[in-house]
Amino acid sequence: MGEPTRSTPSEAAPDDRRRVGLKDVARLAGVSVKTVSNVVNGYIHVTPRTRARVEQAIKELNYRPNLSARNLRLGRSGIIALAVPELDIPYFAELARLVVAAAEERGLTVLIDQTGGNRHREQQVAEGIRDHLIDGLIFSPLALTADDLSARTDDTPMVLLGERIHNGPADHVVVHNVAAAREATHHLAGLGRRRIAAIGAQDDAAGETGRLRLAGYRQALEEAGLPVDERLIAPVDAYHRADGARAMARLLESADPPDAVFCFNDLLALGALRTLLERGYEVPAQVALAGFDDIEDGRYGTPTLTTVSPDKRQISRLAVDLLVERMSGAAQGATREIYVDHRLVVRESTAGRLPS
Amino acid sequence: MGEPTRSTPSEAAPDDRRRVGLKDVARLAGVSVKTVSNVVNGYIHVTPRTRARVEQAIKELNYRPNLSARNLRLGRSGIIALAVPELDIPYFAELARLVVAAAEERGLTVLIDQTGGNRHREQQVAEGIRDHLIDGLIFSPLALTADDLSARTDDTPMVLLGERIHNGPADHVVVHNVAAAREATHHLAGLGRRRIAAIGAQDDAAGETGRLRLAGYRQALEEAGLPVDERLIAPVDAYHRADGARAMARLLESADPPDAVFCFNDLLALGALRTLLERGYEVPAQVALAGFDDIEDGRYGTPTLTTVSPDKRQISRLAVDLLVERMSGAAQGATREIYVDHRLVVRESTAGRLPS
Repeated sequence: MGEPTRSTPSEAAPDDRRRVGLKDVARLAGVSVKTVSNVVNGYIHVTPRTRARVEQAIKELNYRPNLSARNLRLGRSGIIALAVPELDIPYFAELARLVVAAAEERGLTVLIDQTGGNRHREQQVAEGIRDHLIDGLIFSPLALTADDLSARTDDTPMVLLGERIHNGPADHVVVHNVAAAREATHHLAGLGRRRIAAIGAQDDAAGETGRLRLAGYRQALEEAGLPVDERLIAPVDAYHRADGARAMARLLESADPPDAVFCFNDLLALGALRTLLERGYEVPAQVALAGFDDIEDGRYGTPTLTTVSPDKRQISRLAVDLLVERMSGAAQGATREIYVDHRLVVRESTAGRLPS
Repeated sequence: MGEPTRSTPSEAAPDDRRRVGLKDVARLAGVSVKTVSNVVNGYIHVTPRTRARVEQAIKELNYRPNLSARNLRLGRSGIIALAVPELDIPYFAELARLVVAAAEERGLTVLIDQTGGNRHREQQVAEGIRDHLIDGLIFSPLALTADDLSARTDDTPMVLLGERIHNGPADHVVVHNVAAAREATHHLAGLGRRRIAAIGAQDDAAGETGRLRLAGYRQALEEAGLPVDERLIAPVDAYHRADGARAMARLLESADPPDAVFCFNDLLALGALRTLLERGYEVPAQVALAGFDDIEDGRYGTPTLTTVSPDKRQISRLAVDLLVERMSGAAQGATREIYVDHRLVVRESTAGRLPS
């Protein structure tokens, strides 16, 4: 798996439509039909100079690729799929926008598939129930395992996102979860907080995100010389605001409640924040709060939310680039695991009102 | 336009694959192959009883429709597209989740297409650049006009959402914008507020949402005997948090600032709220605030956001139902414009802390 799964078209078939065709564009640009086809397909083994020439010719001739005809001819649609668990988790919505933009630069259209993290739907996605429709797949699975994906019979090129599958059968773009969680927890400890809670632990198979971030949290506490109090680790069913609100309420029932909370995503943090403010706690004076994802939401709440900001633009670009390399055959063989940048963004929920 | 555009398959071709086929399911369920096909395609002219029998047989035989083969045979994919401007506007993300759920109940898969409100991309969507891929389209356009859609050559069944096109060439599901905006403004006037501002007016062609909601706002002010002060009507470039924050800042520069603001969507309201709190205003004591959309975000902010809640579940169900009726031929002829329910949800941003 992971090998390029379709050969690059060696020659486009003669174009006998009356509309402007690949041949006309090739003639005007002074390049081969294959080069035009590569540009139209968004493939990377075209120099920027050649690409510009072809794009100029496409514009002059008002050439509009006939996808249906091209489909039949090349077995390609110019369409890739992005499959994510839930679009109303803003992290995925923001990622979707960026993937659409990155793909557009390559001349590719993105169709988005919301799986709900449902095993059956994820299997449909992986098994390419619509393998005649898409040229490639960017997939953030929650239910499927590496074994599931290795057993995949569909050969549509695929790039994986998320924490679910590491060192699996496809290229993978991922965040340094342990390191990032460690930094967020260090930040809270550095403020002098001593009872730092964690919201977001998950027991089930899909809980890899929670496990990695919990590992970073534990590591930071140990490094800071703080005891790990298991009662301060709040499990959740899902990563929505309501889960964060409930988990925070449980933590506040403790005789010795936390003075800081690291939430494993921003939605959990925003839910926790609501519970804290509703009950009259001052944030950050009494309880400091940090999240993970840097969704826009957290930048407009009051207080604004300190958070780990993964470079979502980099994730999106890399995912599209790696996929296009597999689609074009430019990348072959061993699968790649690529870690992207992140940074801790300190805002009011830990730093208090910043001087404006 | 608006007529059913594909005939229902009258008979499925013989199935000679070795896998379990339509014929096997039909035999076990004691129905015709056509009926099985209708169930598999999620069409509505099947009684619930028959549907249950067919679904039972599908389950027993572990029948998995071969979409590719079915495609060729019936010219159908079992896939519909949902095209919306922006997924990181939570209203559209929430709608997408509900459309996916409603479609799933009909056995249909949804692929989501984010147009960015870009005219070229919307034209691609309308012109069915992928008309071999999808059986129907639920489309919320921002740039295209009714004339654009009437000139459409693609005949894939379509249902429209949003305010952009009324009485257009396709079935349309929409909110009572004027009435809802009027109710929200009445609510603010009913609190004794006398300088009620509006954030969200738009001048450009795509500003139909703003125009309708502004009309409702004006109507309510007149009914309440309040003057319409044009300086209290804040235009915006877009409907994001940042636009609301900027518009609120401008309103506060006035010598006689507002004591209430009706924002034409929740994102604008959340941006405005941030500006108010950042500058030390008390909400709602000094400035009361209402939005529109009832996104989850507004339920977790502090204060929680009073808002017009359109029935998004109803919108999604109706859109899928109307589309399936066109796809199946059950609905023919004149296009339908269907208004959905909404209600005003009063929360802390106008009512203050509610007794818990």
